[in-house]
Amino acid sequence: MVSIATAQPNLINLAAPLENRYRQVRQMSEHICQPLAIEDYQIQSIPDVSPPKWHLAHTTWFFETFILIPYLPGYTVFHPQFGYLFNSYYEAVGARHPRHQRGLLSRPTVAEVYRYRAHVDRSMMTLLSATPIDPDLADLIILGLHHEQQHQELLITDIKHILALNPLHPIYRDDLHPHPPDLGSKFEWLAYPGGLYSIGAESHEFAFDNESPRHQTYLQDYKLGSRLVTNSEYLEFIHAGGYQESKYWLAEGWMTVQSQQWRSPLYWEKIDGEWWVMTLSGLKKLESNEPVCHVSFYEADAYATWQGKRLPTEAEWEIAVTNMPQVGNFLDSDLLHPTPANTSHHQFFGDVWEWTQSAYLPYPGFQVADGAIGEYNGKFMCNQMVLRGGSCATSANHIRPTYRNFFPPSTRWQFSGIRLASY
Amino acid sequence: MVSIATAQPNLINLAAPLENRYRQVRQMSEHICQPLAIEDYQIQSIPDVSPPKWHLAHTTWFFETFILIPYLPGYTVFHPQFGYLFNSYYEAVGARHPRHQRGLLSRPTVAEVYRYRAHVDRSMMTLLSATPIDPDLADLIILGLHHEQQHQELLITDIKHILALNPLHPIYRDDLHPHPPDLGSKFEWLAYPGGLYSIGAESHEFAFDNESPRHQTYLQDYKLGSRLVTNSEYLEFIHAGGYQESKYWLAEGWMTVQSQQWRSPLYWEKIDGEWWVMTLSGLKKLESNEPVCHVSFYEADAYATWQGKRLPTEAEWEIAVTNMPQVGNFLDSDLLHPTPANTSHHQFFGDVWEWTQSAYLPYPGFQVADGAIGEYNGKFMCNQMVLRGGSCATSANHIRPTYRNFFPPSTRWQFSGIRLASY
Amino acid sequence: MVSIATAQPNLINLAAPLENRYRQVRQMSEHICQPLAIEDYQIQSIPDVSPPKWHLAHTTWFFETFILIPYLPGYTVFHPQFGYLFNSYYEAVGARHPRHQRGLLSRPTVAEVYRYRAHVDRSMMTLLSATPIDPDLADLIILGLHHEQQHQELLITDIKHILALNPLHPIYRDDLHPHPPDLGSKFEWLAYPGGLYSIGAESHEFAFDNESPRHQTYLQDYKLGSRLVTNSEYLEFIHAGGYQESKYWLAEGWMTVQSQQWRSPLYWEKIDGEWWVMTLSGLKKLESNEPVCHVSFYEADAYATWQGKRLPTEAEWEIAVTNMPQVGNFLDSDLLHPTPANTSHHQFFGDVWEWTQSAYLPYPGFQVADGAIGEYNGKFMCNQMVLRGGSCATSANHIRPTYRNFFPPSTRWQFSGIRLASY
Amino acid sequence: MVSIATAQPNLINLAAPLENRYRQVRQMSEHICQPLAIEDYQIQSIPDVSPPKWHLAHTTWFFETFILIPYLPGYTVFHPQFGYLFNSYYEAVGARHPRHQRGLLSRPTVAEVYRYRAHVDRSMMTLLSATPIDPDLADLIILGLHHEQQHQELLITDIKHILALNPLHPIYRDDLHPHPPDLGSKFEWLAYPGGLYSIGAESHEFAFDNESPRHQTYLQDYKLGSRLVTNSEYLEFIHAGGYQESKYWLAEGWMTVQSQQWRSPLYWEKIDGEWWVMTLSGLKKLESNEPVCHVSFYEADAYATWQGKRLPTEAEWEIAVTNMPQVGNFLDSDLLHPTPANTSHHQFFGDVWEWTQSAYLPYPGFQVADGAIGEYNGKFMCNQMVLRGGSCATSANHIRPTYRNFFPPSTRWQFSGIRLASY
Repeated sequence: MVSIATAQPNLINLAAPLENRYRQVRQMSEHICQPLAIEDYQIQSIPDVSPPKWHLAHTTWFFETFILIPYLPGYTVFHPQFGYLFNSYYEAVGARHPRHQRGLLSRPTVAEVYRYRAHVDRSMMTLLSATPIDPDLADLIILGLHHEQQHQELLITDIKHILALNPLHPIYRDDLHPHPPDLGSKFEWLAYPGGLYSIGAESHEFAFDNESPRHQTYLQDYKLGSRLVTNSEYLEFIHAGGYQESKYWLAEGWMTVQSQQWRSPLYWEKIDGEWWVMTLSGLKKLESNEPVCHVSFYEADAYATWQGKRLPTEAEWEIAVTNMPQVGNFLDSDLLHPTPANTSHHQFFGDVWEWTQSAYLPYPGFQVADGAIGEYNGKFMCNQMVLRGGSCATSANHIRPTYRNFFPPSTRWQFSGIRLASY
Repeated sequence: MVSIATAQPNLINLAAPLENRYRQVRQMSEHICQPLAIEDYQIQSIPDVSPPKWHLAHTTWFFETFILIPYLPGYTVFHPQFGYLFNSYYEAVGARHPRHQRGLLSRPTVAEVYRYRAHVDRSMMTLLSATPIDPDLADLIILGLHHEQQHQELLITDIKHILALNPLHPIYRDDLHPHPPDLGSKFEWLAYPGGLYSIGAESHEFAFDNESPRHQTYLQDYKLGSRLVTNSEYLEFIHAGGYQESKYWLAEGWMTVQSQQWRSPLYWEKIDGEWWVMTLSGLKKLESNEPVCHVSFYEADAYATWQGKRLPTEAEWEIAVTNMPQVGNFLDSDLLHPTPANTSHHQFFGDVWEWTQSAYLPYPGFQVADGAIGEYNGKFMCNQMVLRGGSCATSANHIRPTYRNFFPPSTRWQFSGIRLASY
Repeated sequence: MVSIATAQPNLINLAAPLENRYRQVRQMSEHICQPLAIEDYQIQSIPDVSPPKWHLAHTTWFFETFILIPYLPGYTVFHPQFGYLFNSYYEAVGARHPRHQRGLLSRPTVAEVYRYRAHVDRSMMTLLSATPIDPDLADLIILGLHHEQQHQELLITDIKHILALNPLHPIYRDDLHPHPPDLGSKFEWLAYPGGLYSIGAESHEFAFDNESPRHQTYLQDYKLGSRLVTNSEYLEFIHAGGYQESKYWLAEGWMTVQSQQWRSPLYWEKIDGEWWVMTLSGLKKLESNEPVCHVSFYEADAYATWQGKRLPTEAEWEIAVTNMPQVGNFLDSDLLHPTPANTSHHQFFGDVWEWTQSAYLPYPGFQVADGAIGEYNGKFMCNQMVLRGGSCATSANHIRPTYRNFFPPSTRWQFSGIRLASY
Repeated sequence: MVSIATAQPNLINLAAPLENRYRQVRQMSEHICQPLAIEDYQIQSIPDVSPPKWHLAHTTWFFETFILIPYLPGYTVFHPQFGYLFNSYYEAVGARHPRHQRGLLSRPTVAEVYRYRAHVDRSMMTLLSATPIDPDLADLIILGLHHEQQHQELLITDIKHILALNPLHPIYRDDLHPHPPDLGSKFEWLAYPGGLYSIGAESHEFAFDNESPRHQTYLQDYKLGSRLVTNSEYLEFIHAGGYQESKYWLAEGWMTVQSQQWRSPLYWEKIDGEWWVMTLSGLKKLESNEPVCHVSFYEADAYATWQGKRLPTEAEWEIAVTNMPQVGNFLDSDLLHPTPANTSHHQFFGDVWEWTQSAYLPYPGFQVADGAIGEYNGKFMCNQMVLRGGSCATSANHIRPTYRNFFPPSTRWQFSGIRLASY
């Protein structure tokens, strides 16, 4: 896997004044898009993917709709129809353009979207320079920044998908140096004692609503693999006929394998008997000791079943990593200077998201926020699985032990991999 | 809702000799089909539904495949292709007829299927009369009987669906007397203290594999409604615009409401301004105080959200009912003499299945059985929600506090209803 | 191909009193269904196919709706909802049950449908015994009888499809003796001079509206094959890679071959290296010299292209057969005594329908009839191809040189074959 | 309707040296795209539409594949995978990118496609400057130019569709002056005598293969409307409930009206009780006396049926226009100076294509060309209807009386309208 992040000190400083932080996050989104051709900004390769242009506009619409319109007196909306075009799923805010048709809009042009961003950024600067900022408003702005950081990760996964389906194998950036952690030689089982634990976010730190409330949960004794499953380990599963044997698979997983004709993870290609993989730096030979990536929950679960093991629950995962130093390969603002990740510790963050066996459900006592912001997370709590840990496409200061990512079990275009668990 | 069961002493006796019990369960399936026209046995009204003929044959195939062929020396298979036609989903047993085409097979005829049943029953009697029965074999036969009882419930739900979609509103049996529990006047919140509890089946009783192992779980303090939500209460939700307001719904639920144009529970029809409902005894006026039935998980969850409440978790439900006497309206072998259910206790069993907010997932330490029988439950642990409690279509001696029923969240043709929970 | 008709004197006499003729046609429909199990009456194997029960009821509905209700004073409708259930496509007559859901109705039962037929037949006898019958009414009744004869052909094609998809290979009747015309040795080109000709029905004979008006058309010199293409000739096309080579196919045909994975005509099965074919008498070895049957227009056209030839136009076909004696294997009322067809003449009628290269379009001056009857043919004049000649499933007295059958080009479940043409 | 063509002397001269003509046609394609933003080049709004970038590359691929590779010694292919990406439907030339995924390719960029054009144009100039050009090769080049002119028309229809679906109503060019012919006051029936006529292309002029051979056909006496049906006439059909009454429609047309919810021609929008229409110059008020445009064959046929009339056959149309001067609004190379069309004659060419009631079928004696070029027209002769006359988006020197355009009957994004016929 191509790492596109570093463990060096964050350039985006959580403690920095909000104004600085706003500017840094917003610049990061544009920095990610800098290598794109205008044409790349347009594509919606599958319904899950949004055109990069849309991400740039939608994150801007979030600040315009939830902050500038209600809180900045005299603010002038940039374009009366952008609310319709760039609302993602907030029913309370009104009608919106159908999601699967985002790739059909040539207008506004990319240049207009950048002007939209500049317009909103100028107004946000006006708002932020007025002192003091009300704490509730500050919280809303910080939510907007986390929202934009989520879309930065989606930008990277979506750009990868857009380029990878192109038979010309275009390169996003060729200065991204792969630096696979040497995972191959060091697997061990880490044992954790059962008992009553607390998980979930403390109320004094930023967290999304779905990480709350912090609550007690009971765990059996359990063990986690000390590292992620590697490409060479996953290849053994393929060679053992993993994709041909129904017995390793959930019923829905097996149906998906057959209807989609899956024979390997997404982006793998067998050329003249050798495995290659499409990366953000183009087509590369498969690296044995990198973590396997772009597998669905179905594949992660089938691999674990084949091994006679299972996936961790999200509580097991969270308890295991609590108090561990946060290391790994994350997205950083300075994409030009990636450096090797520190792998001396057991790697739980960065690299790839780790599928858990937990369905994405509300924590005991979960409360949906009032208003449109309440649509942020709760309404997706059905038919999705939790992933933990963050990936090389996740912003370093965006990740934390309590973070709950979630996707349907068939999802493969995210940077998602496998950690084994056992009793 | 039409009750088709009684609380009178079970005619199927769990303690009876296996031979008797086998005969009783098998007769019950045929008893359920007795009011059908030959034509009714053929229909697959939606892919979820199987033709009654298929249920009769498939449950027979189970005994033939898993018991007679391996355990009865000299057993002659009834028809060489019935294995292909009547395997439901056991991949390990070989190829099978596509599920959604079950309604396209006019042959074998209904008469042939009854001959198939008689052939297998005779051989089973031969096997059972040989003494002694090996305990492992006995367990397998008991599993087969529970399997057939599950299909008896499906027979009733499927027959209801087959007849209900017919514009002629045919009647299954008109001697089923509705006897709604007087639910309307007695709602109260039952409070339960939090703490560490054990749930799941004890190993010395019959249970499906998915009920094991018994394990500890931690609960917050919680409350459950003392009775199910009634039709009149659900009508308030409809009148309040429940089906028009996205904010009460999970995102997938809202999409389903719109694509399926749901405006009420399944089987409800508004005729000249009044609500009617299709029952096994034909079209009837909606009864205010009966429990609302044939709602999906999406509708159950939306109703609870509208009320500012939630659905119970399966652990909350199981702890609440443990040690409670098992009462309710269940399917009994003597369908001709339904009697009013005992409703003096808080009703947790029978009437309708209760949607929980728990996804259907393996219990900690869950082990899949070896061989084809291992496909029984585990492979469906994805994108389904747990229901608890049993319905009027469930056999009385088939239900127990630890029983985990499960269906996709959009399912409506089951007898499924709503109990509210709260912290 | 199994012939199910004879060339012996017609039992249905066109010159007979209308009462006799009505009785004979109606009895024929029931005679065709006599070998069926109740279960067979229910099946809609593909949307094109209707359950035999539906055909029996729909043809009855035609007489009830268009004749008894308007013309028999005091007639009592058999069931108020049968109009909804058994209208096929007459928009003017009101709402109707969706076509693709005809197989989902277990009620009315088969017995009820036969009672419906008896009820309508009794009333028709009352009407017909009143003298004299108004000529317009007589024409309408004769139309109803031709309509029923069309459905008799559909009954046979549909029954064949219903049984053929069943893995048990059930037999409709095993007393149908195959008697392939000895086609293999006698192919020759029959030449016809070009010029100005008249085609279409004379106004003094019964014909469907789409056969009128008789009109002039100009033909080039042309040649027709003296007999139909045989199974062995078609096998050569298969062996030559016909189903693998796009160049023989129309673009839509090639797409269909690939999406449907066609590799041979419908009902052919290769078992242990030998070709078998499912017939009304069960699975039989493929007969070399029988006409190839159950091919789509796409396959007929591709075969002709592979041969460097083409299909006839409907005008070429009609001019060629005009004044020829009408011979062939047709459906007759006495299905129990099939006799060899007279093949001394060039066979243009019976055996199989012959695909033409003519799209189904209105003749110059075509006028749609007023009222619901006007929906009979005209509204289907789009995206269908004309077939000529009749098949072994066509009633002998129902066929004539001007008869225009029509189906979409992908249709295969009809008895349809190939005659070559050339300039 | 916005006219984008003139009747002024053609800038593309059919008699000019092939080199000049090649250059003019190729420049015209780029000229059409000149007003586009880079983003507009990418969009495939429906599967029928191709991204403008694709048209520019595909027409270039045609010259590279069929002319430069076989005929220019030493020619270097521009990019080895462009053959895969830009083959439209030529099976004989090898695998190709799926048609419905043309909008998913961001690369090659628009700039690269223009470099591809320049590369091929330079090589074509090398080839053309070598004297003498073999006549067969010249014919192939002329075919390539006609092919590119067809795609110029598609470019305009596709650009219109791409912009029209955008809620921002973008403008292609605002200097296109609408100049509706004053059609409203002059309708009359033009009568033509029946008889034996010849239609089809003479062999000494350029024509596509489907226009040959010239052959005799017999016509009844007939009449054609002297002008096209206007918007205000079509509005009467709408106001009379035309889209609500099944009786005017072909069965497939009526199904399409209902499934697509058609209530007016494509691009019409009712805003505050007034009809507007999306044009290449943006949203405009509907002009009463312009020809109705963007109707499907189904709508054209339904309108004619409502009028008690019919559509012309292609032979009737061709005979009527033969020997008439070719006038109308066609696409011309100088799009900047549209001038009013000469409407003193009866308008049969330009403005809009005229749906005929003729299915698209081979003429008697039609021969498919050998090789890949043979796939040009013949393989589409199924389930399509013929249109005649050309539209404002058709190149003036590309149209002729024998030209047979063809589209499926549901097609609406072409500039297609209605002329009435009668006997």
